[in-house]
Amino acid sequence: KKTLKIAVIPGDGIGKEVMPEGLRVLKAAAQRFDLALDFHEIEWASCDYYLAKGQMMPDDWKAQLSGMDAILFGAVGWPQTVPDHVSLWGSLLKFRREFDQYINLRPVRLFDGVPCPLAGRKPGEIDYFVVRENTEGEYTNLGGVMYAGTEREIVIQETVMSRFGADRVLKYAFELANSRARKHLTVATKSNGIAISMPWWDGRADAVGADFPEVTIDKQHIDILSARFVLQPGRFDVVVASNLFGDILSDLGPATTGTIGLAPSANLNPERKFPSLFEPVHGSAPDIYGQNIANPVAMIWSAALMLDFLGQRAAHDAILKAIERVLVEGPRTRDLGGQASTTEMGEAIAALV
Amino acid sequence: KKTLKIAVIPGDGIGKEVMPEGLRVLKAAAQRFDLALDFHEIEWASCDYYLAKGQMMPDDWKAQLSGMDAILFGAVGWPQTVPDHVSLWGSLLKFRREFDQYINLRPVRLFDGVPCPLAGRKPGEIDYFVVRENTEGEYTNLGGVMYAGTEREIVIQETVMSRFGADRVLKYAFELANSRARKHLTVATKSNGIAISMPWWDGRADAVGADFPEVTIDKQHIDILSARFVLQPGRFDVVVASNLFGDILSDLGPATTGTIGLAPSANLNPERKFPSLFEPVHGSAPDIYGQNIANPVAMIWSAALMLDFLGQRAAHDAILKAIERVLVEGPRTRDLGGQASTTEMGEAIAALV
Ligand SMILES: CC(C)[C@H](C(=O)O)[C@@H](O)C(=O)O
Ligand SMILES: CC(C)[C@H](C(=O)O)[C@@H](O)C(=O)O
Repeated sequence: KKTLKIAVIPGDGIGKEVMPEGLRVLKAAAQRFDLALDFHEIEWASCDYYLAKGQMMPDDWKAQLSGMDAILFGAVGWPQTVPDHVSLWGSLLKFRREFDQYINLRPVRLFDGVPCPLAGRKPGEIDYFVVRENTEGEYTNLGGVMYAGTEREIVIQETVMSRFGADRVLKYAFELANSRARKHLTVATKSNGIAISMPWWDGRADAVGADFPEVTIDKQHIDILSARFVLQPGRFDVVVASNLFGDILSDLGPATTGTIGLAPSANLNPERKFPSLFEPVHGSAPDIYGQNIANPVAMIWSAALMLDFLGQRAAHDAILKAIERVLVEGPRTRDLGGQASTTEMGEAIAALV
Repeated sequence: KKTLKIAVIPGDGIGKEVMPEGLRVLKAAAQRFDLALDFHEIEWASCDYYLAKGQMMPDDWKAQLSGMDAILFGAVGWPQTVPDHVSLWGSLLKFRREFDQYINLRPVRLFDGVPCPLAGRKPGEIDYFVVRENTEGEYTNLGGVMYAGTEREIVIQETVMSRFGADRVLKYAFELANSRARKHLTVATKSNGIAISMPWWDGRADAVGADFPEVTIDKQHIDILSARFVLQPGRFDVVVASNLFGDILSDLGPATTGTIGLAPSANLNPERKFPSLFEPVHGSAPDIYGQNIANPVAMIWSAALMLDFLGQRAAHDAILKAIERVLVEGPRTRDLGGQASTTEMGEAIAALV
């Protein structure tokens, strides 16, 4: 059996609290399914490291990670000491780009046992994927400030999209939709307001969609689309979006299913030329760090997505089942109305695996 | 008494159905409060006009509207025949820019009698304003496509912000927050991902905020902010946002209060150098047009905001009271679970005024 080399980066804040639970469950799965997981714990890509060394990562970060099969990531960011754009651009966003993790896949699902903030929705009624472009678009550090420091200050911020970048994420989303029962793809846009890139994006969706005649395609402007995530969540099957719109939708979607403490994400380089990265959608959450009350499910589910991507479908399914059962039976962390600690919830899931 | 000259632009789709109800209620208010309202009905700024003339508005549109005290606007857009970016950039977005309506003010309120899509929320628990920058930011037609039509296609889309533009909307929002009981301002940002404009925007918020020591300020990234509109709506008092973020938040907010059929908006040139424009947040809604089932409240509330802006506070308050009562007692349109037509609901509100 092949050894899977996993880089483990807890990062900052509650990333450091949920990561041990992710590892606990992975170790349980490794035992049950006879997997050889080789964990490489890494203390950089954190604000602590930045404060000590003046940079988020060592110069040879890429070499250190290149041999890995995957990266398991907690959360990064500690704005009290390091501005977010420094910590994120120096770590997470670098991984996404330099390892060409161009798909950010984020499942949104309402679980049994989780109180839904939307009135009257039942498990099964909310069940879709957000497929987010993850390497270009609105997230750039291109542009600048003119007349800086004066009354006449003007700021230019560039959004950059490419046919290469748009087509591959659209294709991934069409394929995913095509593989599902409903075969329905929602394309997030804002072509009525953002007049260059978004009409172009709509055109690429049509062009790529021509190869998927069985998939129905529905373009929706991001404003009304956000409203419908709340009002008509059952409409959605697969949603594809640019970097920024995907970021918004993949926090909003999980919020409608109860807590962003559940939401996992997979930053994929589907060709496996570079390691893919798996992380909770929630951030470092400075407001609750240090109390061991963070919900570990997003981290654990992310670890399961990692196993699935690495070909371990059975292990993925077992972890998901364990999560489902603990969400119904407890123990539950506070965001779910319970009293359990991060550790207790992680232990319960690991025990079921 | 001074005659108030109101340009009336129904536009497209349900804009044409809700506008008569807006006018009906305004006429009732004029009678009761002895106002002289002089309506100028305008058939351009519509896709019908575009199809006939090849442009959305006549060349002298600005001259025709310049003497007006305000513009009452229905909705524009009919993507079946005219692409949205053509119809919108040729009308609504032109008004906002060329009449320097730099504030887009959008109240979000949960009313008694309106079923809330969020579980367990009561009227009074959701009550905030979104203050949206309305003339610059992410909405530009600057940029272009390189290598167009080839595999190597690259698209650049510019976001443009100015200190002039940012400071005035931030100041307006701080003043609004300062005038309210809670004095709390949420600043929408995404400075961890959008690396030039958003850290700069955060800095302007701090700079302008220095003059408002009593206002508490809370910067939130747009992703988690959207999630909190669903999970913790009671947190919000006044929310200030760039053009795009304000667009998203002001559809999402109203969605959490039941229906975007209620949400009004005021596009303000506070100095009254140019006419301000008042319109529902909902668009032309091709899917329900022609059945006379659209909810007219957003249009009627927008008309009330117009009267308030024109100094007619008592008339505004009377209309709001009538809306509140009809929402409790009916008749109600389908989006509110009733069976009433657009006309019936409008008549009921007018009768109460
Ligand atoms: C129609 C569209 C251009 C417009 C906008 O995005 O500003 C609308 O959504 C709004 O919110 O007024
Ligand atoms: C931390 C931040 C830069 C990041 C993003 O916006 O991509 C996060 O919100 C996410 O969704 O992974």
